[in-house]
Amino acid sequence: MRELFHDQLDAMFVDLAGICGQVETAVGQATEALLSGDVAIAEQVIIGDIEIDRAREKVEDDAFALLSLQQPVAGDLRTVVAALRMVTELERMGDLSVHVAKIARLRVPQVAVPVEIRPTVSRMAAVAEDMVRRVSQIITGRDVEAAIELGRDDEVMDQLRRQSFTELLSDDWPHGVEAAVDIALLGRYYERIADHAVSVAHRVVFVVTGLNPSSVGA
Amino acid sequence: MRELFHDQLDAMFVDLAGICGQVETAVGQATEALLSGDVAIAEQVIIGDIEIDRAREKVEDDAFALLSLQQPVAGDLRTVVAALRMVTELERMGDLSVHVAKIARLRVPQVAVPVEIRPTVSRMAAVAEDMVRRVSQIITGRDVEAAIELGRDDEVMDQLRRQSFTELLSDDWPHGVEAAVDIALLGRYYERIADHAVSVAHRVVFVVTGLNPSSVGA
Repeated sequence: MRELFHDQLDAMFVDLAGICGQVETAVGQATEALLSGDVAIAEQVIIGDIEIDRAREKVEDDAFALLSLQQPVAGDLRTVVAALRMVTELERMGDLSVHVAKIARLRVPQVAVPVEIRPTVSRMAAVAEDMVRRVSQIITGRDVEAAIELGRDDEVMDQLRRQSFTELLSDDWPHGVEAAVDIALLGRYYERIADHAVSVAHRVVFVVTGLNPSSVGA
Repeated sequence: MRELFHDQLDAMFVDLAGICGQVETAVGQATEALLSGDVAIAEQVIIGDIEIDRAREKVEDDAFALLSLQQPVAGDLRTVVAALRMVTELERMGDLSVHVAKIARLRVPQVAVPVEIRPTVSRMAAVAEDMVRRVSQIITGRDVEAAIELGRDDEVMDQLRRQSFTELLSDDWPHGVEAAVDIALLGRYYERIADHAVSVAHRVVFVVTGLNPSSVGA
């Protein structure tokens, strides 16, 4: 019974890492759509989100089944509840990618991001995508050290976001209100993706160590 | 044992309604700070959020204790898991109120919202605050009908948000990029508060009926 339980728990973490992989694709494609103005890729992200939702439902159903049938306690219980929370956050990261894709689609045939601010936006996107990729590995390897490191890298995103504000609020900003509003919202979406990535990584720390990340140096 | 369990569950829902009340205060004060430029009220929201976090921790601890010690199944299990999710969303609504308060604080001694767009922003804030107030009653009364109605009212918020975009993207917008970016982000925060309110209300529907809100007309 206990062995079966742990096999099922392992399978659930494989599913979580799989969803994280889907989110990584979504973030990457949304960014590609954003920077290229390619509406077909934007649509792919928007439609693809249904599969992330479906995968979330499967994890939720499995978690309920585990809780009902196996009645875990202590660490096992915390792990199942953590999985439920992680899947909610991963789904939300998918939703945020959809928001990015929708801004891309809204501006076609133009591109939402003016050329001068592309480096900053591209870096925000790259940081977000990289964080999602690392979360996937953190889930698979239950890698506490990598999870703690990820939490520290969140500052890079904050810094990029501040930089984007400096650029679009400068007196030289020639692109008007619409582009500025797009950039501000895009920054918010990428920042939230990064926040959720850190949060998912911290739940892995909790699952493995039983401690909150702040007690282990995160 | 079962009676004790249900007493504890009832107490947890009293706590959830209490947190919802704290969030209602936070949304109201953040809006007041925003529209008046009163930095002391903004600070109150920011500091007050610690208490919402603390109240969340209590609900989480109680939920874990219930799951561990009472090993609920079926509907009871779903109710405890729903409570865990509701408290996460309520805490998030508190965080969003802090974001509103921080925009207010950032612009002091100015006011972030230019006079022409105050009616739209005030209405967004009023809709959000009203939705939070109703969620509190929905939690207390396990009121399925009110919960379904709340879901429908979310459209009012979407409409106000679109209207705010129309105003700040119009050729007559005289307030420049900074104010426009503030309004866009404020709109996003109020919209997310409303989204979470609907989501919490829908979890009440699920707790009471065992059905997803979409199956009962929400």
